[in-house]
Amino acid sequence: MSAALRLGIAGLGTVGAGVVHILRQHAALLEARTGRSVVLTAVSARDRSKDRGVSLSGYAWEDDPVVLARRDDIDVFVELIGGSDGPALDSVKAALQSGKDVVTANKAMLAHHGRALAEMAETAGRVIRFEAAVAGGIPVIKALTEGLAANEITRVMGVMNGTCNYILTRMQSAGLTYDQVFQEAADLGYLEADPNLDVGGIDAGHKLALLAAIAFGTAPDFDGMEIEGIQRIAIDDIHQAADMGYRIKLLGVAQRTGRGLEQRMQPCLVPADSPLGQLEGGTNMVVIEGDAVQQLVLRGPGAGQGPTASAVMGDVCDIARGLRIATFGQPAATLASLPAARSSLPAPYYLRMKLVDKPGALAKIAAILGQAGVSIDRMRQYGHSEATAPVLFVTHKTSRAALDEALAAMRQTDVVAGEPVALRIEEV
Amino acid sequence: MSAALRLGIAGLGTVGAGVVHILRQHAALLEARTGRSVVLTAVSARDRSKDRGVSLSGYAWEDDPVVLARRDDIDVFVELIGGSDGPALDSVKAALQSGKDVVTANKAMLAHHGRALAEMAETAGRVIRFEAAVAGGIPVIKALTEGLAANEITRVMGVMNGTCNYILTRMQSAGLTYDQVFQEAADLGYLEADPNLDVGGIDAGHKLALLAAIAFGTAPDFDGMEIEGIQRIAIDDIHQAADMGYRIKLLGVAQRTGRGLEQRMQPCLVPADSPLGQLEGGTNMVVIEGDAVQQLVLRGPGAGQGPTASAVMGDVCDIARGLRIATFGQPAATLASLPAARSSLPAPYYLRMKLVDKPGALAKIAAILGQAGVSIDRMRQYGHSEATAPVLFVTHKTSRAALDEALAAMRQTDVVAGEPVALRIEEV
Repeated sequence: MSAALRLGIAGLGTVGAGVVHILRQHAALLEARTGRSVVLTAVSARDRSKDRGVSLSGYAWEDDPVVLARRDDIDVFVELIGGSDGPALDSVKAALQSGKDVVTANKAMLAHHGRALAEMAETAGRVIRFEAAVAGGIPVIKALTEGLAANEITRVMGVMNGTCNYILTRMQSAGLTYDQVFQEAADLGYLEADPNLDVGGIDAGHKLALLAAIAFGTAPDFDGMEIEGIQRIAIDDIHQAADMGYRIKLLGVAQRTGRGLEQRMQPCLVPADSPLGQLEGGTNMVVIEGDAVQQLVLRGPGAGQGPTASAVMGDVCDIARGLRIATFGQPAATLASLPAARSSLPAPYYLRMKLVDKPGALAKIAAILGQAGVSIDRMRQYGHSEATAPVLFVTHKTSRAALDEALAAMRQTDVVAGEPVALRIEEV
Repeated sequence: MSAALRLGIAGLGTVGAGVVHILRQHAALLEARTGRSVVLTAVSARDRSKDRGVSLSGYAWEDDPVVLARRDDIDVFVELIGGSDGPALDSVKAALQSGKDVVTANKAMLAHHGRALAEMAETAGRVIRFEAAVAGGIPVIKALTEGLAANEITRVMGVMNGTCNYILTRMQSAGLTYDQVFQEAADLGYLEADPNLDVGGIDAGHKLALLAAIAFGTAPDFDGMEIEGIQRIAIDDIHQAADMGYRIKLLGVAQRTGRGLEQRMQPCLVPADSPLGQLEGGTNMVVIEGDAVQQLVLRGPGAGQGPTASAVMGDVCDIARGLRIATFGQPAATLASLPAARSSLPAPYYLRMKLVDKPGALAKIAAILGQAGVSIDRMRQYGHSEATAPVLFVTHKTSRAALDEALAAMRQTDVVAGEPVALRIEEV
């Protein structure tokens, strides 16, 4: 039996309390599986008096997470504070510099400072593990870094913000507008303090940057990502996409192309009968495609106390068992810096617009698409009582540049009312 | 840079050739990710002259896999021979005794000899890895053993024989009988040399025994499993289950109950709109439920050259990276031997029978169910032109014992034509 593994936890919100709960409830199980006892030594949080539903007696308390990170009586610093900089980053650096391993759920910090922290960990001979930072309880970091290590990864995709998927699927099932469901989600406490982190795609974008880094052997490059939120998705788009056999998802996609690394986090259409299309509510899904494995689909809870604590503790168990691996699966110095390739891969698109109801309107639009080299796969015009007619196109595969050229030309005509909606259709 | 990791591969069928292909194609990728070169030293197979689609020049050849396993110039013995005993078992033992790590895809060998081999590996200070033995390319062994190590696992389920799932979904989509689709599958080369390994549930049962061992900390206990194949599933069952909102799957389920370890591999009904219900064709799916993670669903190719070789090589990469873990996730000596609990957990059941078309027939059956304490949730009688009427029941949760009592009583009446069909409905 090896010596006990001693943890210090900084941040005692929902997830931190969940980790304490597992440590107290499953001490025997953890020891049986890892071959050593896993104990909590000290904790840090902002408010010492708050009731967190778990007993904190017997653990030392530090007001300052940096002081906690430097304590001699911890082996692993568990960072659950959050935020890309500030106390989270300061304390993680302090932990590595003091020779502690780090387990974190902090996607923002790693998306922005991943390479520097990985280098710092390697210099210190320590590891940084972050299973909980991506897709909650789904062990996708492990699957990608270890299980699929012999694959050239060709594409990684994910629905990784449960709040956005809740909003989109609830709009469809209840026939409510975006604003109505956004308010529901706010009332239910589903939204971050800054809701733009959720509905603007930032949170999911941080996660995609981490998956892309592992998949393609690059440093995380959040700034190179195209990000578009779900705020402009209309109930008409939800219904009309469904009518064409699709669902709208806030989908992250990362691919290596001839031009570099393409990372997109944006509302996309996916086939309604695909695993991604069938994903309802707050559940997350990650799809990994590799040259040998073909396609792997992982589905599970993307947030919540138990699932996220499960991921944090999975990392702790790896450290307890002596399973040590470089932060992004290979030495930080070997991580590439690829140029950001913006929507370079052609795709079919969904186009919705309102046409002024006069002769020749549709012919004008069709001519503009043809001139831009965008060919039409399917088209529907719906019955209407207003002065404008809703018209849908599904294009064949086209470049985003050709599509943007067509959209610009449409805006110059007198037959399109309002702004056309263009959404990529991701083939899955 | 560490020394090269040297492999010896025994068995050069589809999977073995796939492993050689990855080693040749991805040498640079493997070295970048594992920090050392991974090289093939020697191979063994029955027929040296066969064209396997990959070059074997530069590798030493051994006719006898046991001799290969003992060579001084290999570090890892990759066993892809198959079969629970014979050359596979002999060579794996020889490899461990000669101080080699073992990577194997052999579910039968581990289901029958798992504990003894795990003990032998520990004595030798070596590891046995078997990701490829369960659900092909899906890294489920890793997810369960490592990613979910902090969970008390409450249930593990899987559709893990692609041939059976192909047959069942093809029966439904094409409206063909079992015998017709079985012949199609045989013509397509989907069946094992002994088809009972597939359609009899044996192959999938071996896989379930390995998952159950890890999930519940027990030695693999294939003999304690209830196994029923899909041979008796009629097209009527497929259609009528669909009519009630279900799909029929050859589903493996393992749970720890008050009476011991319950392991079942049998045709079950699952809701048509659940991930398991939506699984079509030869794809595999494993569902893991734990107290913290709630429910995790993994979906991917369960067989084939690339996916299975991906899993084999994932294990090889772990060994190259120094990631070493006990065979079933904890020391072999600590694996429990639980009593086999046979269908001790109550469940709803689907019952289909043909009733002789005379007054009081349905009343008799309903009375028998009531006397046995089996209560009816839903019932349908279909229109009919024959002398017997097809009747379906979906029961409320009941014990298998009560159901068997009712079935025995029905057989004593003069109103049931032929043998009633009883299938468990697994709640997922």
